[in-house]
Amino acid sequence: EAAAGLEGVCSMLRLPLQASPEGLDAAFVGVPLDSGTSHRPGARFGPCRIREESVLLRAVNPSTGALPFQSLKVADLGNMNINLYNLQDSCRLIREMFQHIVTAGCIPLTLGGDHTITYPILQAVAKKHGPVGLVHVGAHTNTADKALGETVHHRVPFRRSVDEGLLDCKRVVQIGIRGSSMTLDPYRYSRSQGFRVVLAEDCWMKSLIPLMAEVRQQMGGKPLYISFSIDALDPAYAPGTGTPEIAGLTPSQALEIIRGCQGLNVVGCDLVEVSPPYDLSGNTALLAANLLFEMLCALPKVTTV
Amino acid sequence: EAAAGLEGVCSMLRLPLQASPEGLDAAFVGVPLDSGTSHRPGARFGPCRIREESVLLRAVNPSTGALPFQSLKVADLGNMNINLYNLQDSCRLIREMFQHIVTAGCIPLTLGGDHTITYPILQAVAKKHGPVGLVHVGAHTNTADKALGETVHHRVPFRRSVDEGLLDCKRVVQIGIRGSSMTLDPYRYSRSQGFRVVLAEDCWMKSLIPLMAEVRQQMGGKPLYISFSIDALDPAYAPGTGTPEIAGLTPSQALEIIRGCQGLNVVGCDLVEVSPPYDLSGNTALLAANLLFEMLCALPKVTTV
Amino acid sequence: EAAAGLEGVCSMLRLPLQASPEGLDAAFVGVPLDSGTSHRPGARFGPCRIREESVLLRAVNPSTGALPFQSLKVADLGNMNINLYNLQDSCRLIREMFQHIVTAGCIPLTLGGDHTITYPILQAVAKKHGPVGLVHVGAHTNTADKALGETVHHRVPFRRSVDEGLLDCKRVVQIGIRGSSMTLDPYRYSRSQGFRVVLAEDCWMKSLIPLMAEVRQQMGGKPLYISFSIDALDPAYAPGTGTPEIAGLTPSQALEIIRGCQGLNVVGCDLVEVSPPYDLSGNTALLAANLLFEMLCALPKVTTV
Amino acid sequence: EAAAGLEGVCSMLRLPLQASPEGLDAAFVGVPLDSGTSHRPGARFGPCRIREESVLLRAVNPSTGALPFQSLKVADLGNMNINLYNLQDSCRLIREMFQHIVTAGCIPLTLGGDHTITYPILQAVAKKHGPVGLVHVGAHTNTADKALGETVHHRVPFRRSVDEGLLDCKRVVQIGIRGSSMTLDPYRYSRSQGFRVVLAEDCWMKSLIPLMAEVRQQMGGKPLYISFSIDALDPAYAPGTGTPEIAGLTPSQALEIIRGCQGLNVVGCDLVEVSPPYDLSGNTALLAANLLFEMLCALPKVTTV
Amino acid sequence: EAAAGLEGVCSMLRLPLQASPEGLDAAFVGVPLDSGTSHRPGARFGPCRIREESVLLRAVNPSTGALPFQSLKVADLGNMNINLYNLQDSCRLIREMFQHIVTAGCIPLTLGGDHTITYPILQAVAKKHGPVGLVHVGAHTNTADKALGETVHHRVPFRRSVDEGLLDCKRVVQIGIRGSSMTLDPYRYSRSQGFRVVLAEDCWMKSLIPLMAEVRQQMGGKPLYISFSIDALDPAYAPGTGTPEIAGLTPSQALEIIRGCQGLNVVGCDLVEVSPPYDLSGNTALLAANLLFEMLCALPKVTTV
Amino acid sequence: EAAAGLEGVCSMLRLPLQASPEGLDAAFVGVPLDSGTSHRPGARFGPCRIREESVLLRAVNPSTGALPFQSLKVADLGNMNINLYNLQDSCRLIREMFQHIVTAGCIPLTLGGDHTITYPILQAVAKKHGPVGLVHVGAHTNTADKALGETVHHRVPFRRSVDEGLLDCKRVVQIGIRGSSMTLDPYRYSRSQGFRVVLAEDCWMKSLIPLMAEVRQQMGGKPLYISFSIDALDPAYAPGTGTPEIAGLTPSQALEIIRGCQGLNVVGCDLVEVSPPYDLSGNTALLAANLLFEMLCALPKVTTV
Ligand SMILES: [Mn+2]
Ligand SMILES: [Mn+2]
Ligand SMILES: [Mn+2]
Ligand SMILES: [Mn+2]
Ligand SMILES: [Mn+2]
Ligand SMILES: [Mn+2]
Ligand SMILES: [Mn+2]
Ligand SMILES: [Mn+2]
Ligand SMILES: [Mn+2]
Ligand SMILES: [Mn+2]
Ligand SMILES: [Mn+2]
Ligand SMILES: [Mn+2]
Repeated sequence: EAAAGLEGVCSMLRLPLQASPEGLDAAFVGVPLDSGTSHRPGARFGPCRIREESVLLRAVNPSTGALPFQSLKVADLGNMNINLYNLQDSCRLIREMFQHIVTAGCIPLTLGGDHTITYPILQAVAKKHGPVGLVHVGAHTNTADKALGETVHHRVPFRRSVDEGLLDCKRVVQIGIRGSSMTLDPYRYSRSQGFRVVLAEDCWMKSLIPLMAEVRQQMGGKPLYISFSIDALDPAYAPGTGTPEIAGLTPSQALEIIRGCQGLNVVGCDLVEVSPPYDLSGNTALLAANLLFEMLCALPKVTTV
Repeated sequence: EAAAGLEGVCSMLRLPLQASPEGLDAAFVGVPLDSGTSHRPGARFGPCRIREESVLLRAVNPSTGALPFQSLKVADLGNMNINLYNLQDSCRLIREMFQHIVTAGCIPLTLGGDHTITYPILQAVAKKHGPVGLVHVGAHTNTADKALGETVHHRVPFRRSVDEGLLDCKRVVQIGIRGSSMTLDPYRYSRSQGFRVVLAEDCWMKSLIPLMAEVRQQMGGKPLYISFSIDALDPAYAPGTGTPEIAGLTPSQALEIIRGCQGLNVVGCDLVEVSPPYDLSGNTALLAANLLFEMLCALPKVTTV
Repeated sequence: EAAAGLEGVCSMLRLPLQASPEGLDAAFVGVPLDSGTSHRPGARFGPCRIREESVLLRAVNPSTGALPFQSLKVADLGNMNINLYNLQDSCRLIREMFQHIVTAGCIPLTLGGDHTITYPILQAVAKKHGPVGLVHVGAHTNTADKALGETVHHRVPFRRSVDEGLLDCKRVVQIGIRGSSMTLDPYRYSRSQGFRVVLAEDCWMKSLIPLMAEVRQQMGGKPLYISFSIDALDPAYAPGTGTPEIAGLTPSQALEIIRGCQGLNVVGCDLVEVSPPYDLSGNTALLAANLLFEMLCALPKVTTV
Repeated sequence: EAAAGLEGVCSMLRLPLQASPEGLDAAFVGVPLDSGTSHRPGARFGPCRIREESVLLRAVNPSTGALPFQSLKVADLGNMNINLYNLQDSCRLIREMFQHIVTAGCIPLTLGGDHTITYPILQAVAKKHGPVGLVHVGAHTNTADKALGETVHHRVPFRRSVDEGLLDCKRVVQIGIRGSSMTLDPYRYSRSQGFRVVLAEDCWMKSLIPLMAEVRQQMGGKPLYISFSIDALDPAYAPGTGTPEIAGLTPSQALEIIRGCQGLNVVGCDLVEVSPPYDLSGNTALLAANLLFEMLCALPKVTTV
Repeated sequence: EAAAGLEGVCSMLRLPLQASPEGLDAAFVGVPLDSGTSHRPGARFGPCRIREESVLLRAVNPSTGALPFQSLKVADLGNMNINLYNLQDSCRLIREMFQHIVTAGCIPLTLGGDHTITYPILQAVAKKHGPVGLVHVGAHTNTADKALGETVHHRVPFRRSVDEGLLDCKRVVQIGIRGSSMTLDPYRYSRSQGFRVVLAEDCWMKSLIPLMAEVRQQMGGKPLYISFSIDALDPAYAPGTGTPEIAGLTPSQALEIIRGCQGLNVVGCDLVEVSPPYDLSGNTALLAANLLFEMLCALPKVTTV
Repeated sequence: EAAAGLEGVCSMLRLPLQASPEGLDAAFVGVPLDSGTSHRPGARFGPCRIREESVLLRAVNPSTGALPFQSLKVADLGNMNINLYNLQDSCRLIREMFQHIVTAGCIPLTLGGDHTITYPILQAVAKKHGPVGLVHVGAHTNTADKALGETVHHRVPFRRSVDEGLLDCKRVVQIGIRGSSMTLDPYRYSRSQGFRVVLAEDCWMKSLIPLMAEVRQQMGGKPLYISFSIDALDPAYAPGTGTPEIAGLTPSQALEIIRGCQGLNVVGCDLVEVSPPYDLSGNTALLAANLLFEMLCALPKVTTV
């Protein structure tokens, strides 16, 4: 019993560090990549600072009754090695790592890194589970096409995923979308694929519990991935991010979204776009750590009381 | 087509820089004055940092359908030259500059600077348009009288404007007012002039769409000026300001106010009181850049789809 | 008459400094202790920075009509001396100091300091008034038992207070509680004592005026203490605190709580857990200064107009 | 006996606060003016933060053997009231306040504030002592003439002082001067008046003990004023200042200069240009507090062991 | 004549902005690339912040007598467009841009960006001038070979330059080198090419004027490029950089190096590795602006008095 | 082979984590205690941030030729568990932990934590090695006696160590001492015990190589402990510390001291007083990581080339 939570080395939620996903039900893994960022970089340090702030968290979630560590074997796999100088090669490395994780029957909970990483993660996830449903929370649809001929960066992961058939497009919802755009109808692509696009302004000053009831129905019992960009939240709550957009969601809405996924067939999760150099208080990382803990608590086999 | 938004030199919204307002429908102009500030200075650097953060913005406003650059010729006039050591002389320089701008038929969108600057701007605007309506968003009424014998500083612009007949007092609304005061009834002056004073506490947890419907009616088709102090917002959203007051408006309410002015006869706008030394993340400046973009989108002749 | 508020030395609300509580109706006093903090330290500098930011405040509260300085004789007693190296001894020093204050018939308004200090303050208060009612606003119940054998630190003040019969347990309410926990039912202790525990999630997006009507009824006319931890608020509003928890209260809710205590028999107040090293903008301290001013305005004998 | 130095209210060096200079040998006084600043403002908060950091200092100077509080009666007069909106009027207020101080036979040690304030202080000092010698340490000569017609601001105090005969020009030395300039020979004015100008580059990597031996000779036994701008130091040591210049002095050189004045007839001192918003660690203010303590230790009547 | 330096839009040294290098003797140009950075990113914002801080500088260099704007036609070409997501493609874009600049007979003074950019710049420079001499100031030799198969990033520019024959290896000096390494003799590559490697520890507490006399001799009258990484300086002076190394050079040594190049045949210069997110005070950018001004003053055709 | 150094979890110098000291020649261990701090707290987070910044370091020390990982088996033991609320009990826990380490024949390299921890570490070290020599680098002698009756805190470790006979007083040197004091002769205690006290002012602008030659002679071949407080350095280099003192040592002097210990019989080392909340750039932690690496390189059995 410790008087305070500073013992050990900073692992996620003070979990044991483990080199291999074998034998785990779920694992946290860091992907320290930010070379896909269009504006403020720094998300490469996201995993490290999220772990650091996660020591404030305790094992029980009294709000949902979840006891994640009683039901699941969970560890922290550390940060994977990426190639900061080559986005395409990093995507290959990420895909391979996550294939290894999902093949072992382990659900990955990823500490980003910028949103680019969701594309190769979905490649690995879909290889195992087939096209998956998606709860994407963020300010941007990330369905841009090429920029300067580049097909991989943080504005395109869901376009690439559609191109490769990784998503079950009728079970895709994007929540928190907002901001100025380069085209007249920036949501056309998403909607033409069948995605549900929930604008931030349709969330303002509202509980999202009714929305999540609809989302749960939409998702059914089939495999589902949660991709949560911290820029979904208003910059007041999450200043440490790469492309902040004003008038975003609140932490209570974020909790309503994640808790609303409880009971679904979640096969993977990520929390991306935390940029520590812009997070002087550490509170963006703390928020991210909390949201990752809530995702863990929402996983299929977690006991609740 | 750029992969990211870092090319060029920081102009507002990456607009062309231009020395003269001739031929423009609207122009951004910086007034780097903060010697009228009573508490935390730094607003002199507001224009520079607002421009810097404005590079994140794109040309289309999908929320309102506005395409400002298709309908208006807009440029950035840079920062005007002021006299930091002499408030009275700065007011003269500002008045002269803005007379030049409005005489050219150009609508000024001003990057402050502290709230003092609205007084000489209104002198220039009223000289052309006669007494104008006013949508003033901010924490303070700024209707104080003299302090130590000084008649010009950031607490007095609307008192001076009334003194000189620059305002159509029946068409003045002040939104977001709050905070402790030196007198028993700090709103008496405003109300006795006929201003509508909307306290922050009457805005808490409410959509301001109904309020703006009333304001639109009040303003009618006559000339109107928008003066937006960033201190209207809660310090959580806008820490970088000179005299922060707790329990303020939210960014979604700010957007409702500005978007609620669409269709009105707006003849000028300012965004004041951004103090970069207190805005370590840059997010106050980013918020200000967004609000200025929204004001541009709300100008009379802007096409919407 | 000053042009701005920088004259003098930083005392709370620019009040006179006084060495003794004799003759005062109420007094601000700083307790610069943070050695009871489990995570981020720094609250030892809370009193100094709260005073510094309090210079922005003015004498009248137009929202409640309170004129505190017309009705009460108030001063700033400065910071008391504590023993940073020994929590038990610090508790003794605090208890003795507050016995001196309350014996003089002076209502203490305390600038913390971490939450440990509320325990010896309640010892002093209950010695004079008997078991008191409590409005405790904060993220944590602070009813833990020992850690590493230590019986005094910032997680335990209300457990110790119950142990010693300092609280009238049927008149205790804890508002804003949230966060992960070490046990299945972290609120069981509080509830088994008869405390009312109001979770943060039961406050989300709601006015707390109805709650406070109930609280006023519960408290009746008997003596009452207000203990306000700044961590009750969401970290967006109060980043500068020791154990931040996401999804907290808003400043408008904080004002509703304190203003809701007007008319009650408040015999003491504290504002704790402000940690300046994590408050780079100073706005957590500014918020704390405002809340302390509001507590002063809510004291029994304050005139309102 | 305190365990740490946090008791009381932040006065300079924990000295007693006093409203009047009567009966004092020396007094610290804050002049919270920064409206004479050409670039980064914030020096208005200099006095407050210097006091705050000064609590780390103790009563004895073991390096010089000075026991300032055994020999002198010293107090902190707090901040004087200035007129932030009017430099000319502020100068009047400062002149009057310092006439009051020096008339009382009290040596002023001033916490600035920007360098403008040295001009009215010298008016007061010279009124009592006649033209004084000057040890001016800083990056800039501050002998500019008018800017936009303004005759008073932080670039001109020594020009104005020469204009009014306040300086004994043969006993003026300016140390640490550097930086780009608007004219071919920026030191011509100073040198033509008879000032000794010691460039920073003539100080690089040198002890200044030999220089100070010459200065002591130059000053003789006649009255002398020390004006120390924190921008004399390299920005690495003093980031929190208004117009930083690279390649400046070191703290050890600063100490050599001040300690080198021991034994001279010092009749007043100031430490100016500390801008807390740019001093995030507080270490510029801490440096300033140390230098002011050293100036106190160098005053004529201080006992040394 | 301005009272202070805030007018206009932030261009380097307030120079005119120009789209083309035609007709210029020298030009500042920003290369906002940081995807070659191995550790802390952010150098993409270097050019913007260096310009912002450069407004403090004035036209004359009294230390060297240089009057750069009397002798040379200089402008700011703004930031060039790069491809953040593809280092190889960015190198192509940079090479093409600089070929355009040097072909126009204009000497480029580059605002980086990370050190990767020096490689394509040298390609352009050597295409015009043949293999050039090099004064490289920095903490790292940047002569690594591949990492993960990547041949272009900020650790390799001088290896790539040797590979392609861009350098006159007998006229290459690297000053300020230090830090731990991956191999036994990290300087072997440089020395085996004929470079002179001057370790930081051979510079400690020394004037570098004698060194520069030797360097001038070594360089002779043939074309020379100056590449200055801000990490040459100790992190105390330049905290805002990507891979800080302790125990570096001082600003006075940096000035001695650049001023020591006066009279040489300098055909291009860069200042790289300024990372604004780690430069909270802005003083790293200010230092960089000063060093770029000094490089301008050291160009061949600059008049001195 | 990694493109950059972000893989894995932050362990010191990317070393393997290990629970036990058995089989190790040397080990890094964190002691996250700061409740002995008299002024700015935060050193509890020192170990975590030092590890984080240590990833920039590489395996070879080209300045000394040391190849520490070729000769020694080294690991990171993580942070030990301490009792933040009870200094005496923390000292017991530290003493027990270090007895375990030294008993295993493992040399501890400690990441502090405040200077209090050196006392129980020396208890453990002296229990094995007998009274040890001491190279203590820091601003303060830390030989105070009690404060408020407390015998254990960060100002007293060497007094307590003398009291208990842990030091071989003729082989104790304290380097970098400075600052104001409470008594006339603050060095008397040290000197009366036979310590050598080297004041910072005797180090100004000097190489410390000659001093270290004398120290090496003084130490001879007998066991020696190195205790390095980061406050030895000037706050420009190490702003993140608890009780900063101006005019301190430079990093090059710090390296000269540690490298000067090569060849001695070093049986343990610590680096204390790094306070991350005051180290916004992370560069104090980076400096500490470098100094710890240098201490490792100076251990007795390290191979050099
Ligand atoms: Mn904890
Ligand atoms: Mn996004
Ligand atoms: Mn962008
Ligand atoms: Mn205002
Ligand atoms: Mn004020
Ligand atoms: Mn709490
Ligand atoms: Mn202290
Ligand atoms: Mn100056
Ligand atoms: Mn300027
Ligand atoms: Mn480098
Ligand atoms: Mn690295
Ligand atoms: Mn110390």
